[in-house]
Amino acid sequence: MFNPQLDEDGKLKHLLSIEGLPKQILHQILDTADSFAGVAEREVKKVPLLRGKTVCNIFFENSTRTRTTFEIAAKRLSADVINLNVGTSSQSKGETILDTVENLTAMHTDIFVVRHAESGAAHLIARHVQPHVHVINAGDGRHAHPTQGLLDVYTIRRHKPDMHNLKVALVGDVLHSRVARSEIHALTTLGVPEVRVIAPKTLLPEHVEKLGVQVYHDMREGLKGVDVVMMLRLQNERMTGSLLPSAQEYFKCFGLTQEKLALAKPDAIVMHPGPMNRGVEIDSSVADGSQSVILPQVTYGIAVRMAVMSILAGNG
Amino acid sequence: MFNPQLDEDGKLKHLLSIEGLPKQILHQILDTADSFAGVAEREVKKVPLLRGKTVCNIFFENSTRTRTTFEIAAKRLSADVINLNVGTSSQSKGETILDTVENLTAMHTDIFVVRHAESGAAHLIARHVQPHVHVINAGDGRHAHPTQGLLDVYTIRRHKPDMHNLKVALVGDVLHSRVARSEIHALTTLGVPEVRVIAPKTLLPEHVEKLGVQVYHDMREGLKGVDVVMMLRLQNERMTGSLLPSAQEYFKCFGLTQEKLALAKPDAIVMHPGPMNRGVEIDSSVADGSQSVILPQVTYGIAVRMAVMSILAGNG
Amino acid sequence: MFNPQLDEDGKLKHLLSIEGLPKQILHQILDTADSFAGVAEREVKKVPLLRGKTVCNIFFENSTRTRTTFEIAAKRLSADVINLNVGTSSQSKGETILDTVENLTAMHTDIFVVRHAESGAAHLIARHVQPHVHVINAGDGRHAHPTQGLLDVYTIRRHKPDMHNLKVALVGDVLHSRVARSEIHALTTLGVPEVRVIAPKTLLPEHVEKLGVQVYHDMREGLKGVDVVMMLRLQNERMTGSLLPSAQEYFKCFGLTQEKLALAKPDAIVMHPGPMNRGVEIDSSVADGSQSVILPQVTYGIAVRMAVMSILAGNG
Repeated sequence: MFNPQLDEDGKLKHLLSIEGLPKQILHQILDTADSFAGVAEREVKKVPLLRGKTVCNIFFENSTRTRTTFEIAAKRLSADVINLNVGTSSQSKGETILDTVENLTAMHTDIFVVRHAESGAAHLIARHVQPHVHVINAGDGRHAHPTQGLLDVYTIRRHKPDMHNLKVALVGDVLHSRVARSEIHALTTLGVPEVRVIAPKTLLPEHVEKLGVQVYHDMREGLKGVDVVMMLRLQNERMTGSLLPSAQEYFKCFGLTQEKLALAKPDAIVMHPGPMNRGVEIDSSVADGSQSVILPQVTYGIAVRMAVMSILAGNG
Repeated sequence: MFNPQLDEDGKLKHLLSIEGLPKQILHQILDTADSFAGVAEREVKKVPLLRGKTVCNIFFENSTRTRTTFEIAAKRLSADVINLNVGTSSQSKGETILDTVENLTAMHTDIFVVRHAESGAAHLIARHVQPHVHVINAGDGRHAHPTQGLLDVYTIRRHKPDMHNLKVALVGDVLHSRVARSEIHALTTLGVPEVRVIAPKTLLPEHVEKLGVQVYHDMREGLKGVDVVMMLRLQNERMTGSLLPSAQEYFKCFGLTQEKLALAKPDAIVMHPGPMNRGVEIDSSVADGSQSVILPQVTYGIAVRMAVMSILAGNG
Repeated sequence: MFNPQLDEDGKLKHLLSIEGLPKQILHQILDTADSFAGVAEREVKKVPLLRGKTVCNIFFENSTRTRTTFEIAAKRLSADVINLNVGTSSQSKGETILDTVENLTAMHTDIFVVRHAESGAAHLIARHVQPHVHVINAGDGRHAHPTQGLLDVYTIRRHKPDMHNLKVALVGDVLHSRVARSEIHALTTLGVPEVRVIAPKTLLPEHVEKLGVQVYHDMREGLKGVDVVMMLRLQNERMTGSLLPSAQEYFKCFGLTQEKLALAKPDAIVMHPGPMNRGVEIDSSVADGSQSVILPQVTYGIAVRMAVMSILAGNG
């Protein structure tokens, strides 16, 4: 079966979504990230792996936070980085996405980091670029945001290396999450035996149980005995819509508090992709508490993005 | 005669417009670009010629595309690059252009890349900077955009090295084009014996024939036997004005199709400065066809800009 | 007494305001700046002191001019620079300042350059960052803008090395100036025996004389015999308010003209933090005249910022 992410030798060519990544490539990324995790703690946080390469952040939708993580990762690899906010750019002159990308390719850009509000934009671009160019999906619609999924899995593996014995709970807005589905897929692929989703019915996709997860509508039930609690971000726009009664009500039922967290294993870790809505999805005492690995997630995110870029460039 | 672009030894000091560049400097730029064209294909696309120099992109008008080409070129020369979108900056605090430029000069900036909506802005700046600073015009009003003109000429020379035997046709909105006049001047200077312009009367400047070109209002007539077809971009705002009946009508008369292109020489090349209005100036099958060198133009654009910057810095 | 700017060994940890900087640290910064002042004149304006470090410009309020000075300084030290315009960023997603900063810290940023409209924002951030992170205040409300104050003092010391014999006059809007108070404090600390402020009553803080300055409401009186004339910027919004009759009237009373400057010592220097309102605070003939050191201030500003960053990084 054709897999647009892999080249003919089965090596990683683009990173578009976690779905479709073979287990050995997941492991390659996580293992490579291990080698970069140390770079951030050095005096000189720089390695020359991408020297003379050009990484182009093409953001059709604004996301300073995500752009910053890729920019830092690329610069630590010694790449030249070009930031393009295409929303305010030549699109207004009638240029299509593909013309923009073809132009940048003609300038011998090596890696495109693409963020677009529409599902499939990164796939579309990957299908059309020349062979020497690599595309990384930095979030497209609600479909996929694979480096976020990878850094989450990496964080779990760092703290709970024996993934074959884990119970992981995803809590919150699975329906609109860019990452929940990728997460579930990656965890299953890496051998996690029990993945639970905890959410109100209105925030779950239909037939979610077909993804191989156990569904809970009661948070206290769902958290019992888990090793990992992954909170999902609740988009502001959901809170005011008809899907939810109110932010307060949501917090009462699905917000993570110390009291609810006590139902998980005593050494359970707490994760959140950020930015957090404190007091909505998560109580500040938990977010800043001893079980939280929310900031390490951000740290590992740089290492994971360095890993992905260096693997892609090496497969050039 | 005083030429603001040259220093007292006749060397290139600023690049403001192609008009006023002696033939030997045109050749110097094109020859230097040849040496950089290879850099883009190397594993490490970086040369240290501008290491420790500061290139400042001052864009008084937004143009992501143009800014990107200069940013990539400068970074491949190892310069430090500072991007300033002055439209949103200190002008609102009542600072004049020249104060802005004087300040940046005081910070020991080496090269200013200036984009401004008004004709002559780059000239004004060049007149006032200190001796060690070089100014490159990246487009001012409808007056000049010399690196675009140079990359066009470079593209022609790459594909048709014997310029003394060429017929070149420029098609479209010569009146409002930033580059058409520069183009004509450069081609004539480099010895091209026959330059044609093909356009409706409403899109031609008065007395255009005085520039030494042949004028055609019938595209089929004008394309007969040419070696190079340079399409010009039609600004959106022209299409809705009184100059043209409609985009469809324009395409019918002056859009480049396979059928019209067949009237040119069989090995004629097709050029466009981008961004293209597909279906208005040019049919997609031609834009993406085997005779199109539109993407190579973009590639050569980086080499030409590297050439200009390295020559200027060397004349510091 | 606890001083948030110093570590337990009394070394500079953050630069938040000039108030609280011991005399020996003021001297350390100015002496280090001396060593960097030469770098800007070299062929290769780059030193490797911050190689592999990440400097993050977090601008909660737009200031291209200030951002540019820090960006140039950091790049000349070979740091990787990340620009964040947080006004348009994740704050709209409900993330707090501290979450933003915690995230960037988790990415192992080394130095934060912070600009915020509210007094105390940089202090707030400095209180919460991890031990390895340094914060530089790049202007917060009307409270402090310490690198501007330092470059002013540096400029005075360069031109008038014997600071124990100087008369310095600050002219204009002391009340709303980010720097006037810092200036006064630094000058006093460095041993300047006589500091004068010259302003209408409406533009002076209450009890300004308690800062150890002499107050003048008549500019001609105040300028008599001074060595240094520091003009302050008049914010546009003040001119239209009730504090001042009109820009013309202000210029008549407190604008610096050749005629008024003649009352100062013959070798007096004229300073202005920029951007200037020519014809309001200062006449163009004075701004561009032989006694003006307004552009050297900008040049020294890079050296002073390089000094601050390299000292902070060395105290990591």
